[in-house]
Amino acid sequence: MATTERMQAAPGPRAVEERTREIGRELFRRIGGGASPLDRAWWDDQLMGLTMDDPEVKVQLFRFIDALPTLVEPASVRRHLNEYLAEAGVRVPALLSMPLAMAPPGPVGDRMLAGMARAAATRMARRFITGSTPQEAFRTVLGLRRKRVAFTADLLGEAVITEAEADAYRHTCIELIRGLAGPLAEEPEIRLIDRDEHGPIPRANLSLKLTSLTARFDPTAAEATADRVLDRLRPILREAIARWAFVNVDMEQYAYKDLTYAIFRRVLDEAEFRAYPHFGIVCQAYLRDAEADLRMLLGWAEGRGTPVTVRLVKGAYWDYEVLHARQVGWPIPVWARKWETDACYERCSDFLLDHRRWLRPAFGSHNLRSLAHAMAGAEVRGIPTDSYEVQILHGMGDPIRRALVGRGHRVRVYSPYGAMLPGMAYLVRRLLENTSNESFLKASAQGDAPIGELLKSPQEVGTMRALATRARPEAEPGVLPPFANQPPVDFSRAENRDRMRAALEEVRSRLGREYPLLIGPDEVRTGDSLVSESPSDASLIVGRSAKATRDHADRALSGAEAAYPSWSGRPDRERADVLLKAAAIMRARLFELAAWEVFECAKPWQEATADVDEAIDFCEFYARRMIDLADPRRRDVAGETNRLSYFGRGPAVVIPPWNFPLAIPCGMTAAALVAGCPVVLKPAEQSPVMAWHLVSILREAGAPPEVVQYLPGVGEEVGAALVEDPRAAVVAFTGSRAVGLSINRSAAETRPGQRHVKRVIAEMGGKNAIIVDDDADLDEAVVGVLASALGYAGQKCSACSRAIVLDGVYDAFVSRLAEAVPSWTVGPADDPDSAVPPVIDAEARDRIERAKADARSEGRVVADVDVDPLRDRGHYVGPLIVADVDPKARVAREEIFGPVLAVIRANDLDDALRIANGVEYALTGGLYSRSPAHIERVRGSFLVGNLYINRPCTGALVDRQPFGGFRMSGIGTKAGGPDYLLEFLLARCVTENTMRRGFAPDVDELAEVEVRGDVGI
Amino acid sequence: MATTERMQAAPGPRAVEERTREIGRELFRRIGGGASPLDRAWWDDQLMGLTMDDPEVKVQLFRFIDALPTLVEPASVRRHLNEYLAEAGVRVPALLSMPLAMAPPGPVGDRMLAGMARAAATRMARRFITGSTPQEAFRTVLGLRRKRVAFTADLLGEAVITEAEADAYRHTCIELIRGLAGPLAEEPEIRLIDRDEHGPIPRANLSLKLTSLTARFDPTAAEATADRVLDRLRPILREAIARWAFVNVDMEQYAYKDLTYAIFRRVLDEAEFRAYPHFGIVCQAYLRDAEADLRMLLGWAEGRGTPVTVRLVKGAYWDYEVLHARQVGWPIPVWARKWETDACYERCSDFLLDHRRWLRPAFGSHNLRSLAHAMAGAEVRGIPTDSYEVQILHGMGDPIRRALVGRGHRVRVYSPYGAMLPGMAYLVRRLLENTSNESFLKASAQGDAPIGELLKSPQEVGTMRALATRARPEAEPGVLPPFANQPPVDFSRAENRDRMRAALEEVRSRLGREYPLLIGPDEVRTGDSLVSESPSDASLIVGRSAKATRDHADRALSGAEAAYPSWSGRPDRERADVLLKAAAIMRARLFELAAWEVFECAKPWQEATADVDEAIDFCEFYARRMIDLADPRRRDVAGETNRLSYFGRGPAVVIPPWNFPLAIPCGMTAAALVAGCPVVLKPAEQSPVMAWHLVSILREAGAPPEVVQYLPGVGEEVGAALVEDPRAAVVAFTGSRAVGLSINRSAAETRPGQRHVKRVIAEMGGKNAIIVDDDADLDEAVVGVLASALGYAGQKCSACSRAIVLDGVYDAFVSRLAEAVPSWTVGPADDPDSAVPPVIDAEARDRIERAKADARSEGRVVADVDVDPLRDRGHYVGPLIVADVDPKARVAREEIFGPVLAVIRANDLDDALRIANGVEYALTGGLYSRSPAHIERVRGSFLVGNLYINRPCTGALVDRQPFGGFRMSGIGTKAGGPDYLLEFLLARCVTENTMRRGFAPDVDELAEVEVRGDVGI
Repeated sequence: MATTERMQAAPGPRAVEERTREIGRELFRRIGGGASPLDRAWWDDQLMGLTMDDPEVKVQLFRFIDALPTLVEPASVRRHLNEYLAEAGVRVPALLSMPLAMAPPGPVGDRMLAGMARAAATRMARRFITGSTPQEAFRTVLGLRRKRVAFTADLLGEAVITEAEADAYRHTCIELIRGLAGPLAEEPEIRLIDRDEHGPIPRANLSLKLTSLTARFDPTAAEATADRVLDRLRPILREAIARWAFVNVDMEQYAYKDLTYAIFRRVLDEAEFRAYPHFGIVCQAYLRDAEADLRMLLGWAEGRGTPVTVRLVKGAYWDYEVLHARQVGWPIPVWARKWETDACYERCSDFLLDHRRWLRPAFGSHNLRSLAHAMAGAEVRGIPTDSYEVQILHGMGDPIRRALVGRGHRVRVYSPYGAMLPGMAYLVRRLLENTSNESFLKASAQGDAPIGELLKSPQEVGTMRALATRARPEAEPGVLPPFANQPPVDFSRAENRDRMRAALEEVRSRLGREYPLLIGPDEVRTGDSLVSESPSDASLIVGRSAKATRDHADRALSGAEAAYPSWSGRPDRERADVLLKAAAIMRARLFELAAWEVFECAKPWQEATADVDEAIDFCEFYARRMIDLADPRRRDVAGETNRLSYFGRGPAVVIPPWNFPLAIPCGMTAAALVAGCPVVLKPAEQSPVMAWHLVSILREAGAPPEVVQYLPGVGEEVGAALVEDPRAAVVAFTGSRAVGLSINRSAAETRPGQRHVKRVIAEMGGKNAIIVDDDADLDEAVVGVLASALGYAGQKCSACSRAIVLDGVYDAFVSRLAEAVPSWTVGPADDPDSAVPPVIDAEARDRIERAKADARSEGRVVADVDVDPLRDRGHYVGPLIVADVDPKARVAREEIFGPVLAVIRANDLDDALRIANGVEYALTGGLYSRSPAHIERVRGSFLVGNLYINRPCTGALVDRQPFGGFRMSGIGTKAGGPDYLLEFLLARCVTENTMRRGFAPDVDELAEVEVRGDVGI
Repeated sequence: MATTERMQAAPGPRAVEERTREIGRELFRRIGGGASPLDRAWWDDQLMGLTMDDPEVKVQLFRFIDALPTLVEPASVRRHLNEYLAEAGVRVPALLSMPLAMAPPGPVGDRMLAGMARAAATRMARRFITGSTPQEAFRTVLGLRRKRVAFTADLLGEAVITEAEADAYRHTCIELIRGLAGPLAEEPEIRLIDRDEHGPIPRANLSLKLTSLTARFDPTAAEATADRVLDRLRPILREAIARWAFVNVDMEQYAYKDLTYAIFRRVLDEAEFRAYPHFGIVCQAYLRDAEADLRMLLGWAEGRGTPVTVRLVKGAYWDYEVLHARQVGWPIPVWARKWETDACYERCSDFLLDHRRWLRPAFGSHNLRSLAHAMAGAEVRGIPTDSYEVQILHGMGDPIRRALVGRGHRVRVYSPYGAMLPGMAYLVRRLLENTSNESFLKASAQGDAPIGELLKSPQEVGTMRALATRARPEAEPGVLPPFANQPPVDFSRAENRDRMRAALEEVRSRLGREYPLLIGPDEVRTGDSLVSESPSDASLIVGRSAKATRDHADRALSGAEAAYPSWSGRPDRERADVLLKAAAIMRARLFELAAWEVFECAKPWQEATADVDEAIDFCEFYARRMIDLADPRRRDVAGETNRLSYFGRGPAVVIPPWNFPLAIPCGMTAAALVAGCPVVLKPAEQSPVMAWHLVSILREAGAPPEVVQYLPGVGEEVGAALVEDPRAAVVAFTGSRAVGLSINRSAAETRPGQRHVKRVIAEMGGKNAIIVDDDADLDEAVVGVLASALGYAGQKCSACSRAIVLDGVYDAFVSRLAEAVPSWTVGPADDPDSAVPPVIDAEARDRIERAKADARSEGRVVADVDVDPLRDRGHYVGPLIVADVDPKARVAREEIFGPVLAVIRANDLDDALRIANGVEYALTGGLYSRSPAHIERVRGSFLVGNLYINRPCTGALVDRQPFGGFRMSGIGTKAGGPDYLLEFLLARCVTENTMRRGFAPDVDELAEVEVRGDVGI
């Protein structure tokens, strides 16, 4: 901050401000006739102008354009257009709805409409996209040069999700450098654009994205990602040096920023690239980090000894960054208000001008105020015009371009390059981005002096806004803030990766300990024990847990029963506070607990921390829900109070699985506890250590020893004893179907001494399908299906094990899917680059391998990853994808609980739904589609507990996505949902007649009654 | 109305109004020194004055006084005083709290405090109560005569709940007439009070209540009640004629008004009473009926040929009438606003003055405006002052009395007579009534001219108020009004008794028909049938219902399963509309359906109509609840929508009992239907005809035939088949514990072809207790326990079968209880005077008689009603009450389901709670207590599904008292409660990622964000 202030002070801020406005007014004059961004002429296409008027029409239309490239059949084009415009409702302008209404029904009309739509979209796209071959690009460049305008070619393309696609991107980059640099060298020099203050500059100029150079750009695995990216980046940079071309590395989402800078710095520090001054990078002024980023770049460039160019932009992902940060609960990385971004841009401009020795300025903006400020700053500093350049977008703002060139600036046009229709993704982003910006300009430029308004300094705007801003109301004391999910750990931040590594080391030093039973206040050791081996490295003993017997079960339930009246009788808020405290402890120990999961259950980093997050969420959510439920439902009438309130059913037996080794036991236990039910926890045999941590935390948080007891052991022995015990009032189970059904049967027996009917909660398996519609965005569908199928090696009840793909897109989907599999690295869970960890134990590995063997015979194997090299280290299983599977095949019906995916072809959506619903389970499901009507159908007819549209089918969040299924997937409870606690609760209604002698205290509350009756006799 | 207008017009309203104000001002002057009701001197006791300031303190203090007579132990007095004042909180005036704080702890202090409290209460009571022996009364009367004031003696007493008490009341009346009339005849005549315009009038004057002349004043059984009352009234009236005394019949609650007038008219039309002119009755001007009542009385008196006196009062039950009407949902019978009552009083005054030939006016009021209006009306009409009298209350308003006497009016003081402390009930009513009135006067008399305000005409007040009244908001179209319970049939109205009688006749003509199975659209007849005999008259065959087999169960479930997708897929509102329509049909057929219940199940009138009401309530409530649940729970974040919604689980098997033959099957069926579950209804073998009506009504209301099917038959055969069927998704059962547990066990088996885990709802038995605290109001406790134990012959799962009575009140309770039993007439259900109908069938009778035989040996038999004379007619069982029962005795543990009550002595409240909770059931419970602390303890520690304080433990209302228990009483569902439908529902969560290309339609909704980001590159 000190730096900034000093810099602003140096050239005399008032002089700069005055000059800024003068230059701004000059630019507006040059644009001519008062033409402003509000003028429709600013836009090159009438359609785009039209859509500016109604945000909903705009969104629907652009979504249609986004889907258009995938629509093969003309009828499908008409259907989609109909559906999207129907969603936008009556506000569709006649220009759009008329062709739809007038096109005759049937194939002829369909073809007519489809042709019109494609032509319109292509026309739009052509405004933005410079070409799809080096030759086309060269022709565009020549056209620009004739107007004395420079260019940079930006490579478009589908999202890179396979290594082949990453190779292709590298190849295209090299091809483009070659295709442009040679011919351009032949062209006569144009002083304005081919030279800067230091002399000639490369005429060929390429902008590329690092994320396109690997199928998995994963900041969590920073090192491995950098290695993969650099393998493909170096040949491009070498080619650039060899052909004297400029290469700029573009910026994308905030999550990739740090790793992008890191890779950029690392490669340019390598000897062969160190001295070349024609590399560039981007700084996004909409980021709160922007100035820190510039300082970092400055320090680094000074050390390197060669300058780099910095393209200063505001940033194109503002909506996404806000949405995403909101969704996950992270701090929003961008400035919330436009004026803040503008102000930051100006501060960054000043910084670049002050440090142009190492950071050569390129001002990328269409905002005349921002540009004028940079120019004024340069003038005041006495910096020549050719020592910086201005960059604008191809196809937009041609009047600005002309004005700038006329004023003697080097203008570089950012020129997308690639195939026309697949480039539509880029087009749509641009359209949305620019029209949303447009609406701002429109809104803010009302009044008498629009140009004056537009040229106001951002600080001035900010001061005015601040005056109009109201303070937020304070939270009520004693009232909890509303529930919010624990934000996931942001592993794109190096400090979090460091914390995880440290936690892994720390926990590694504590492996191999012994864990006693926790029965009441006693720590009970037993002769026999359950040994937790690390699945990633079978030689590692995570811990040895005591093994409870039927007698221990009896003791534990005696304690639980005795503790029940006082525990359930405690004020609800006190029980809730135990959960809140436990959440706080888990939050404080988040990385450590996650590290335990990495070792005991082979949970990868992200999933291990997410599991702890979910455990925290359960505590926070159920605590609040209980506080809500504790407020009695009143149905008072004058003279009678009626209160319905809840209390715990009695001792609860909790039998969780190992695959969410903290979250699921914690969720079931926390629900029972907060409801007033003392818990006996019988953890899964594979994850007793995690359960021990849970019980310890709950006790530390204030749960009395008899109220949460720890009883690891063999399910058939101690589990069965607990379920059968007449004192157990609730049995909460999550696990396999077979065990769940047998528990349900056993608990329904009324045994001697039993005083109640037991309540059983059973969450069982799944055979979950994702339907891929023929208009799906395949970039997303392939990634989403793989994430759902291979995440945690498919060991989730929510995992996708069936992809049901519509005929029209089947072949394309299967081939991209198969190609994408190899980048899902199988490896140990403690390595952040492992995408598929080992499975839980040898028994599971063998079972899955047998299922894989069967599956190979039930379809066409399209991916079958060999993990033989890892076989000796742990329980690794290679992913298997089998296509062309019959819906009746075993691999399409039975749960495998491993990284095995069946791909099934469906004729149409009806067929897909029939197949999807045709299994005995009903847990999760998914759909990838861009047809509003299909989305609506699937919403109504895909009968699963949790349905996900256009996203993976795993990763339900507490409260946001209450989780649980039906049919053979469960009895219908929804963990993390509003009704879950009711399973553990009984309700009592207490009615009191408050009328005595014909009078009641509350009679004054009678609404209609003004005053009481008069005295009578 | 026409009459009223004419009358008002006659004397010139303006003249009357002017004269009214003059007289009013004169009266105020005579009261002296501007003294007004606001003056503390108006009150005779400082304590009463104090309490005027705070309504809460007032209520608590008067409640304490109400309980005081029952508090035997001094420590108990202190405890109660503490508890009541604690509830009133810090606002207790020092004058009250100081003695409590200063009295030393321990017995001495307790005695001191108790003595002070009793002395204070007695002092207060003495202001109101004239004496407790004829001699005391006579002394009071002489004192009044010295002040030239007349009197009427009003007989106080506990509520009459036994025939012995009714006899005692009659005896006291006669004794008082004798004790006063003789001695008074000896006194010298006082012209002002001993003569009217016609000559001498009786000096002895008695006011009595008809409800005290029978243990059961039941307007439903109007004829039988009248007979019982007249048996005791005639001797009193004869005595009055013989001794030349005046007898006035007082008015009480509105519900008794019509029957009171009817009895009054009937007896005075009898030859021996016809010519005596010294009988009187009351007209309550706060009733909307008041003028109609006067017209009725006028017509009747003209016909009789002898005048009666009419005491015109405003009415003393205003709070009660409003509360009670609100509670049951009847129209409020009293005027809502004070000015309306005042205006009605003036209209009635005019009517009486105009018709004083037949209705001799007695104006009972303390309101000077009302009295002045009557006096002015008399003056203007030229009516002499001695042709009407003014009546006021003893102990209140002495200044008024003096003023009136001074002005030459005959003033009669209404003088309560009876024992001092038991008369406290009267005292408390008066205190509450008058202090609530006082607060009105206080509130309205602010300002400069309080007297002018107080003398304003009611119409003037009304006009001003009307201007300040706002219109109610209109209901939204398409939105249902909030749920309201169906109001019970008001059998105090003759038209409803007539409708019930007509319905019984109509249904009687349709008995004996055959009822086929209803399987889909088919009516299936079977060889064998279930025969419904009328329990009241075994020779009457109500109907013959077909008997379903396992094959029929299979057919029905096939249909249900096939219908499930389309039924559950219908819009929720459509399914809800079926219920609403069914409710409308039942409402239209209410009396007819109730009549069927009378015949098939021996439900008495009130209970039969209440059962239909409850069926209507279930439909109305579940329809609304489903509409609420149909609105998905949203957890949207920008870029992602999350909707949690519900749908039906699948085919439901409904197995109801016979004891609420419409309500319970309707409730379970309606819940299933509206949730989307097609129902197969297997009715109880004893009440298939009622179930047939239910199914017919639901189909008529729009439920498709496959969606509600009727399958009467034998439980072990067709019931078992339905429960076992793999297609049944829900089993909803209400009935015995043994069957419930076996259903639960059977349903937990997963059978071949089963695709889900079944959900079982089982409502089972009860062994319900009412605790009677030693400070309970025995009037209410005895009646409440008997109503709970004997209502519908104890055949309710909610019935009270244990009275747990605290030692201090045990003997008194048991003796009053035993004495009260005989007035619970056992008889056929179609006779409205039957309080205890026969039990459902011969098997039940025999079972209950066996249990009674056992019970007699388990305690001291205190009531054992012989029903031998009825034995041949039907399945009658005489009530049995056994006292001194051990809590471990069978009669104290096992459900009998008949009119058998065990009375158990408890040492203290802890003991009582231990006994109450010490059974295997936990359905309903009750408490009668006037200790705030005990009420609080029992609220928290009496663990039953439905707890009722100071009222009977049966008669739960839908929504207001969600019904159901736990332990062996049920799995914990609450019928008619907010969570009930969830048992039939599954939840689905649908998540849609709405972000595409980094943009989402709802991004504009981001709250913090002012505008979007600027264009970048």
